[in-house]
Amino acid sequence: MDFSQRLTQRANLIEAHLRDVLGDAVAESTPECGPEARRLAAALHDAATNGGKRIRPLLVIECAALFDVDENACLNAAAAVECVHCYSLVHDDLPCMDNDELRRGKPTIWKAYDEWTAILTGDALLTLAFEILVRAATHPSSKTRLALVATLAKASGAHGMVQGQALDLAVSKRGEPKTPTITSTKTLQALKTGALIEAACQFGGLLGGGDQQALSNLRNYGAALGLAFQISDDLLDLEGTPEDVGKATGKDTADGKATLVGLLGKDEARLELDRALKNANAAVDGFGAKAVVLREIADFIAKRRH
Amino acid sequence: MDFSQRLTQRANLIEAHLRDVLGDAVAESTPECGPEARRLAAALHDAATNGGKRIRPLLVIECAALFDVDENACLNAAAAVECVHCYSLVHDDLPCMDNDELRRGKPTIWKAYDEWTAILTGDALLTLAFEILVRAATHPSSKTRLALVATLAKASGAHGMVQGQALDLAVSKRGEPKTPTITSTKTLQALKTGALIEAACQFGGLLGGGDQQALSNLRNYGAALGLAFQISDDLLDLEGTPEDVGKATGKDTADGKATLVGLLGKDEARLELDRALKNANAAVDGFGAKAVVLREIADFIAKRRH
Repeated sequence: MDFSQRLTQRANLIEAHLRDVLGDAVAESTPECGPEARRLAAALHDAATNGGKRIRPLLVIECAALFDVDENACLNAAAAVECVHCYSLVHDDLPCMDNDELRRGKPTIWKAYDEWTAILTGDALLTLAFEILVRAATHPSSKTRLALVATLAKASGAHGMVQGQALDLAVSKRGEPKTPTITSTKTLQALKTGALIEAACQFGGLLGGGDQQALSNLRNYGAALGLAFQISDDLLDLEGTPEDVGKATGKDTADGKATLVGLLGKDEARLELDRALKNANAAVDGFGAKAVVLREIADFIAKRRH
Repeated sequence: MDFSQRLTQRANLIEAHLRDVLGDAVAESTPECGPEARRLAAALHDAATNGGKRIRPLLVIECAALFDVDENACLNAAAAVECVHCYSLVHDDLPCMDNDELRRGKPTIWKAYDEWTAILTGDALLTLAFEILVRAATHPSSKTRLALVATLAKASGAHGMVQGQALDLAVSKRGEPKTPTITSTKTLQALKTGALIEAACQFGGLLGGGDQQALSNLRNYGAALGLAFQISDDLLDLEGTPEDVGKATGKDTADGKATLVGLLGKDEARLELDRALKNANAAVDGFGAKAVVLREIADFIAKRRH
């Protein structure tokens, strides 16, 4: 199985599992409320099963594979990370945030439904992530399940992703800080994008019962990957077409967002991307031949065109 | 200590604990991002420590007291429930939902900051709730901590509170169902308000290691209390002044919301409220004299004027 086949196979596996999980989550429990009771359910489905690349759940599975954990034993944890990612997209797309009408080539949730449904859909997906993680099927060890919740909550809350989005919007909507620096922008991106990618890698280590050194290596891999992901995303926003990318492009510049590509220039940003790729690979050196897929993922992220 | 003193003492205890928890949650970890890094922190503080009655955390503490659990051993679990309650208020107040500018006599978060900050503040509070629950300090048993997460997630997500809010907005914004019934409205309210109150009561039982029968009794108590709470809230919306209630009144009627008071009429609604109060008391009969405070809470909720 080559890398692109693997990517497709894993994405299909995750998508199928998300459908299962959501099927349970939104089973018709309130028939007396009529067809409206299914509206939130439909929005949840649209938000979570719209054919994303599923990079974060892929990272959970492949990092766990370092410890010989079967992919099927990772699916709940992988789905939980993806639920958080999908919730963040639904909220970020709202008119009062990034005001995006297109996501993965389809209307965003607020556009297809309305704003309040989009906010509630995000809220429900975030809640579902934690509901999934504590299920016995997620991991046999109670301590591991608790560690998964702690890791995901820390990565996605006021110390992580939410703070990153707040800092990003502060730049574009409030003009603060007035002169974003490379350091402040890297911190912002590490929180907004890196934290959840790092958590996905840590998830693999936790599921596999990795020691402190292994977990730390996976965190470093995830951090470098997050930076690479963000730079390549910025480059796509600048150079891609909406058809390639599946969403509006050229928006970061128009919105006055702080990007590393904007601050460094395209050439220096490409060098920074190369360095991030090297750092990602170096972090998983100790896993030897087992880390071949992790190196392929890093390469894919650095060179992606959509 | 009489009931009103107890209410004040518990509310102060909870408020102080929320301040502690939030102090940790928003400690300055990104100095390179300048003062904007503290904006989300400030909004979180405003959203969670604005002097609510703290009924839900009170229920956690008093239900746990049935099993002789010390109030200080309940504070993390109680704070987590209150974080979820506060997040729901921040999101519900948004212009695209209930469009409220006043909450507990102060400007709502979107009014004091802006809409995107309010959405992110709610997201961060919801995430924080789960982060708090898995801490070792929350309960010595891993299994209990997992049960707390499962209970809170189920009560607040697409099977609980979020679905309740979606159904409520479907009535007021989409005119669906066209003719709300007493049954559909009761289900809606049970999800929107009852589920979290029920979870708070269950939390007490879980912290105290109660058996299935005790947990079931506490759930019934919480469900009856939730109904009483909603009817008294509807009556306040109809009869109270904004000064008494600390928020705009007369809104439910203006917004075309389905309320039991609207469907039943005021007199029949008062009878329904009395029945709910009786059911709440009956559910905790088995706890005997220990349940005196739970009976006082039910009485307070049924007869509250603010």
